[in-house]
Amino acid sequence: MSSTTPATSDRTATRMAAEIAEQPDAARRTIEHLMAEQPRLRALSEGRRRVLLVARGSSDNAAIYGRYLLEVHAGIPGALAAPSVATHYRASLDLGDSVVVSVSQSGATAEIVETQEWARSCGATTVAVTNVAGSPLADAADVALVTQAGPEVAVPATKTYLTQLVALAVLADAWADGPSLADDLARVPDAVAGLLEADVAPAAEALAAADRVVVSGRGLLLGTALETALKMEETCLRPVRGYSYADLRHGPISVVSEGLLAVLVASAGGPLAEPMADLVRDLQERGARVLGIGGTADFAGRCDLHLAGPDLPETVEPLASIVPSQMMIEQMARRLGLDPDNPRGLNKVTQTEFTS
Amino acid sequence: MSSTTPATSDRTATRMAAEIAEQPDAARRTIEHLMAEQPRLRALSEGRRRVLLVARGSSDNAAIYGRYLLEVHAGIPGALAAPSVATHYRASLDLGDSVVVSVSQSGATAEIVETQEWARSCGATTVAVTNVAGSPLADAADVALVTQAGPEVAVPATKTYLTQLVALAVLADAWADGPSLADDLARVPDAVAGLLEADVAPAAEALAAADRVVVSGRGLLLGTALETALKMEETCLRPVRGYSYADLRHGPISVVSEGLLAVLVASAGGPLAEPMADLVRDLQERGARVLGIGGTADFAGRCDLHLAGPDLPETVEPLASIVPSQMMIEQMARRLGLDPDNPRGLNKVTQTEFTS
Repeated sequence: MSSTTPATSDRTATRMAAEIAEQPDAARRTIEHLMAEQPRLRALSEGRRRVLLVARGSSDNAAIYGRYLLEVHAGIPGALAAPSVATHYRASLDLGDSVVVSVSQSGATAEIVETQEWARSCGATTVAVTNVAGSPLADAADVALVTQAGPEVAVPATKTYLTQLVALAVLADAWADGPSLADDLARVPDAVAGLLEADVAPAAEALAAADRVVVSGRGLLLGTALETALKMEETCLRPVRGYSYADLRHGPISVVSEGLLAVLVASAGGPLAEPMADLVRDLQERGARVLGIGGTADFAGRCDLHLAGPDLPETVEPLASIVPSQMMIEQMARRLGLDPDNPRGLNKVTQTEFTS
Repeated sequence: MSSTTPATSDRTATRMAAEIAEQPDAARRTIEHLMAEQPRLRALSEGRRRVLLVARGSSDNAAIYGRYLLEVHAGIPGALAAPSVATHYRASLDLGDSVVVSVSQSGATAEIVETQEWARSCGATTVAVTNVAGSPLADAADVALVTQAGPEVAVPATKTYLTQLVALAVLADAWADGPSLADDLARVPDAVAGLLEADVAPAAEALAAADRVVVSGRGLLLGTALETALKMEETCLRPVRGYSYADLRHGPISVVSEGLLAVLVASAGGPLAEPMADLVRDLQERGARVLGIGGTADFAGRCDLHLAGPDLPETVEPLASIVPSQMMIEQMARRLGLDPDNPRGLNKVTQTEFTS
């Protein structure tokens, strides 16, 4: 095996890189496994008219996508739960009209398990999205959507995050009256595989050299932007801020100045494509450099640096748009002399309460 | 009036300082004016079982308090709207079970006005919380809760934010079956007045000298923490990150290190008081200094610097807890050589879309 090329060894030198590369298969397995659950999901939602999502960390970013997709594609009002309302205030809410969807890679985060229990006691039916069959969250849910990412060893979630998005797309699709997402979902594994060929070295270099980094996105791609920021922060141990487009406009844009690198995650289509292209110009006028991911040709042409996004409709685009971010972050960490597989201070199962 | 003391002239040297000082009266007028609207609010919510809040910027931080209070005090599921679902995706949601509460100081932010119109077309009844009678938002709403802050000249929202919290407390109180908040609300103006006497100079000095600042809070006080961060960013033109307690625990705490000043906004009572005290120790162990606002005696004792909070029950505490933040931020801006009344890049009416 002395014939291994440098490019290949580079891509799989870390567990994180290997797990990023496993995503086409992980997505394919998860789509196949979960599409079979759609009849049970439909039965569960009978007579229910809203969805409450429960999650933290990366799973929360996945849930943000789920909420947009439920509203935009399925026409079902969604919301993100405030877990302390359940775990600390122990409020009594009438959730008899709700399905509660809990998202946790490990299925063992105590706060999420407890919030799911509380939701059931408030009258909700429950769906767990987790990578671990037999976990407390999966066992206690009415329907468990077990993602097929396989074991994830690197601390930064990559394939478990992407397969959470698959699960949420399958779920929104099950509950939508309109055209099915099935054909679009089937294109995702190949789109992810195509993105793995990109050269992210210039982006990783620019990020490692930047004084300050912010990340922004909007609508269906907001979760992708927030996950890019969180992943960079966890993996590269630098403060990186994720902003919604609107939040960046409402004040914080005043702190944009020379030395800032703004990462913008954009959609190639949909109603938000044009505003994102306008944001590039405004950030540049204030002295920032812009690294774009995806978006229209106009958007790409305006960016100082650009990575291609997937050729997918906006509804399922986030399932692949995160891949260039993962790749550049893995390289950025190594450039900074860090081990992306094990950044300090993180465990795979995070508990919100201090146990020490 | 040559007898004006230096302390007084210092406090009212800027419009922002003057407007902070007007808050006891603004709160008193708003409570009196809005309590009279409670019967109309009750009529409006007949047969409705959930609340959707629509806001951006500071108003969004007020809405976060509103959501917790609705759930914790009134037992009504709340959620924050994603305005782009209305304005760009034009999703069709069934909001026939919902009251939609739009919060905007000016009542003229196009995106919020448009989202309120959309909500009505989706079957919602509508409440506007705004400081401007006759504004588009107020005129189009089923019930307009017009806050009585008076004209606000300084760009950073202070008395309009505080009176928005009053409006949301009045609203949650109108819809709660349990004990009324009326007596607690009546104590707010005096509590605010008491806080105006505090010496915030050491806190302002520490903030101005800090390399990096983050702000955190939890539950009913989460909105106060996020508003403290946003206000500092807008007024002092420095990047300041607002985190929920849980988000700080799920990863970003790994970027806490020497040179960081963490501002923690805490409650003196309620189920989250003890975890906040534990957070102080953990941040200090990682090398951060902690500036605490409010909280228990144990919490205060652990902080490196501390400002007293109000003596109010947790449900209405946020109406006063923001005051020490406002005061220290106004002083911090002046220490940095900035004009707190007119930080660059902000207008009183913010539009999310670029108009240039």
